[in-house]
Amino acid sequence: NTVSATRDGKGTKVMIIGGDGYCGWATALHLSARGYSVCILDNLCRREFDMQLGLETLTPIASVHDRVKRWGEVSAQNIHLEIGDLCDWDFFSDAFRNFAPDAVVHFGEQRSAPYSMIDRQRAVFTQHNNVIGTINVLFAIKEFKPDCHLVKLGTMGEYGTPNIDIEEGYLTVTHNGRTDTLPYPKQAGSFYHLSKVHDSHNILFAARAWKIAATDLNQGIVYGVRTEETMADPLLINRYDYDGIFGTALNRFVVQAAVGHPITVYGKGGQTRGFLDIRDTVRCIQIAIDNPAAKGEMRVFNQFTEQFSVRDIADLVKRLGAPMGLNAEIIQIPNPRVEAEEHYYNAKHAKLEELGLQPHLLGDSMIDSLLEFAIRYKDRVRMELIKPAVDWRKTPVTSGTAKAAVKAD
Amino acid sequence: NTVSATRDGKGTKVMIIGGDGYCGWATALHLSARGYSVCILDNLCRREFDMQLGLETLTPIASVHDRVKRWGEVSAQNIHLEIGDLCDWDFFSDAFRNFAPDAVVHFGEQRSAPYSMIDRQRAVFTQHNNVIGTINVLFAIKEFKPDCHLVKLGTMGEYGTPNIDIEEGYLTVTHNGRTDTLPYPKQAGSFYHLSKVHDSHNILFAARAWKIAATDLNQGIVYGVRTEETMADPLLINRYDYDGIFGTALNRFVVQAAVGHPITVYGKGGQTRGFLDIRDTVRCIQIAIDNPAAKGEMRVFNQFTEQFSVRDIADLVKRLGAPMGLNAEIIQIPNPRVEAEEHYYNAKHAKLEELGLQPHLLGDSMIDSLLEFAIRYKDRVRMELIKPAVDWRKTPVTSGTAKAAVKAD
Ligand SMILES: NC(=O)c1ccc[n+]([C@@H]2O[C@H](COP(=O)([O-])OP(=O)(O)OC[C@H]3O[C@@H](n4cnc5c(N)ncnc54)[C@H](O)[C@@H]3O)[C@@H](O)[C@H]2O)c1
Ligand SMILES: NC(=O)c1ccc[n+]([C@@H]2O[C@H](COP(=O)([O-])OP(=O)(O)OC[C@H]3O[C@@H](n4cnc5c(N)ncnc54)[C@H](O)[C@@H]3O)[C@@H](O)[C@H]2O)c1
Repeated sequence: NTVSATRDGKGTKVMIIGGDGYCGWATALHLSARGYSVCILDNLCRREFDMQLGLETLTPIASVHDRVKRWGEVSAQNIHLEIGDLCDWDFFSDAFRNFAPDAVVHFGEQRSAPYSMIDRQRAVFTQHNNVIGTINVLFAIKEFKPDCHLVKLGTMGEYGTPNIDIEEGYLTVTHNGRTDTLPYPKQAGSFYHLSKVHDSHNILFAARAWKIAATDLNQGIVYGVRTEETMADPLLINRYDYDGIFGTALNRFVVQAAVGHPITVYGKGGQTRGFLDIRDTVRCIQIAIDNPAAKGEMRVFNQFTEQFSVRDIADLVKRLGAPMGLNAEIIQIPNPRVEAEEHYYNAKHAKLEELGLQPHLLGDSMIDSLLEFAIRYKDRVRMELIKPAVDWRKTPVTSGTAKAAVKAD
Repeated sequence: NTVSATRDGKGTKVMIIGGDGYCGWATALHLSARGYSVCILDNLCRREFDMQLGLETLTPIASVHDRVKRWGEVSAQNIHLEIGDLCDWDFFSDAFRNFAPDAVVHFGEQRSAPYSMIDRQRAVFTQHNNVIGTINVLFAIKEFKPDCHLVKLGTMGEYGTPNIDIEEGYLTVTHNGRTDTLPYPKQAGSFYHLSKVHDSHNILFAARAWKIAATDLNQGIVYGVRTEETMADPLLINRYDYDGIFGTALNRFVVQAAVGHPITVYGKGGQTRGFLDIRDTVRCIQIAIDNPAAKGEMRVFNQFTEQFSVRDIADLVKRLGAPMGLNAEIIQIPNPRVEAEEHYYNAKHAKLEELGLQPHLLGDSMIDSLLEFAIRYKDRVRMELIKPAVDWRKTPVTSGTAKAAVKAD
């Protein structure tokens, strides 16, 4: 048993939908190591997207079966594995009833904005997969385990970039002399981000109508690949996406620096977003589970620790990469997205810290959780995957653009 | 040619998705009579719901083929008919490209809140059908006719019942010393109403990203069955739903009064909503088409003319029914929905009137457009369809509740 941790989970049964993914895998092991009884449910569509688009994680990840098996050997903890589609009600309802979770952590969605903008078919897939999947989770809880706490991953991208402060889920408005607290207005910037907005509205309704306890975590952009448990054995290593479709800004910049590719800032680079370390993601989930929402409440936490502009991040990668021998150049490329490139941004994120989150800071994590991995695995980098592959203004109705990710130009 | 009207439509090509439905049929004829070139696209799923659930319109409606044929004879105007599913891209994109509309009026959704709450399968159907259908419309416009104006039917139910005034689509908020105009916060009360919220978010994104011109009409509850064109011939008569699933409050109360059934107010009856006459619906659509939104703009109009509480309406039916020999009793029944029964409600609806809408008022329409029909067709009323059939708190995961509408108790 090479993994050490307190056992404060005390057998709490947690179903992790999307548990083979980037956040889900790290969270599954984090919770399993701490005494929670974990079931991973995943249809492996994320691995299928990689196959279809010719993408590959930087880190060599094991199959889900090998991962789970190895984790059993390393930790002496059993993770229950259910392979199937959340949108398939027969499969999902059986799995849910059999495991009868105390909490469901729902990561299981198509989560790439560029993927959702490749073509009409993938826009439709993304909204169907995400919206219907979440409806199924709500019905399962209502019908089979009304006390089960739903911990749902949303995104900070739901808010867009309003010209006022971003609050955590709700906004108190005084208008024509009357006051109410209302869901914070949403202005999402891709079919993916929109699917999360739809989920949030559906969950709010179900929480109120069916007295479900729900936590909606509006997560910022996650970076890094190191968590204690995923580092415990090579077969447990987490995925690290650096391509133009699934790679998020920071992860991509670091890989670009590692291989001597210019750091590609989209447009002016004033786009400001919330970020967090994957080690904080797993803690946030644990905190949400340990401090459940009330029945009938959809509680919203903004799950990120620091906000940066894309330019800030590029500069940081360049500065911290230099002592490690990297000589990164920063270039601006035409922005393939439709988004404000200079804007006000001030998003609140106090609630998870009030519940005990102790943030890792990017300045510290850059070296050990990012640059170190990018340099270690840089021979695996496929240069053709680095550029942006999807243009928001073009999104065609014809499919056959699967080659977008690897096209030659 | 028995239909007289000005020909101010001047051949403007309008595709009416859902043109076999209640609002769509009246609108198609209204526009056709006025010189617009009309294509109806409908998959007839509304008629299929009636068959499956054992429901029936009060008025005897002709088949869509007979309707359209008869209209050609009566008006000497040809309506182009496309039978098929908006969610079927091959079918829809062909029909759209062939007709190449200047405006698309999109009524083609599953539009009953109770239907969407019958069971899990119908909740999923409603959100899939409505959300994916609207995505298809957006892609068709973007790809094949970027200047086509989208006129999309939303609902006042998207707003819920906030404790502040309801504005037309957007709310100007001052918060911590900064100001922005943001999408009005949405709090929908059924999977159906939620599907409209999702549509609105998707349309706002597409309008901005793809420079589409869109008008989102947040329509109130439509009443009445009389429009000039649908009265021109028995084969043209419009549908009138009075059952517990598709019948809206006012239409149902009138039928109840006509057959001597007590008027069934859900709960306290303080639920206040916006209402409009079907004769105003058709005018609003014409006004929206004649005054298109700008490219890149999603313009929102609240499409209703008067607001009433359910109690107000029951009283009005009782009062105006009396001189026509109806002796209606008003009873309160347990509310099958989850909604506030006493609340603040003040919704703005100035924009369509600024563009020329001259409202019919319920006090005047009650007799000629409602009571008259209910009395004329009262022998067709099936008493077992009158009661509420769907309970919001129960919505099971199992299907086979199709009998909900006609169950004996
Ligand atoms: N990674 C980030 O920076 C980030 C930021 C904000 C929010 N999020 C959210 O966190 C969650 C996890 O993100 P991630 O980066 O780990 O994504 P990921 O793609 O690596 O993981 C998602 C997992 O869900 C599975 N999945 C998808 N649809 C499914 C379905 N219908 N049935 C069963 N399994 C299904 C996939 O196979 C995959 O393993 C997502 O909901 C995402 O939107 C992620
Ligand atoms: N009737 C009201 O009081 C009211 C109030 C507010 C908003 N609305 C909205 O106005 C619109 C029309 O309402 P209505 O009362 O006429 O409804 P309706 O059900 O009578 O008409 C809708 C029509 O759309 C068709 N349709 C549905 N899905 C389709 C698909 N995938 N492909 C092709 N056709 C499809 C149906 O067959 C039907 O003929 C709806 O969008 C509704 O939400 C209606």
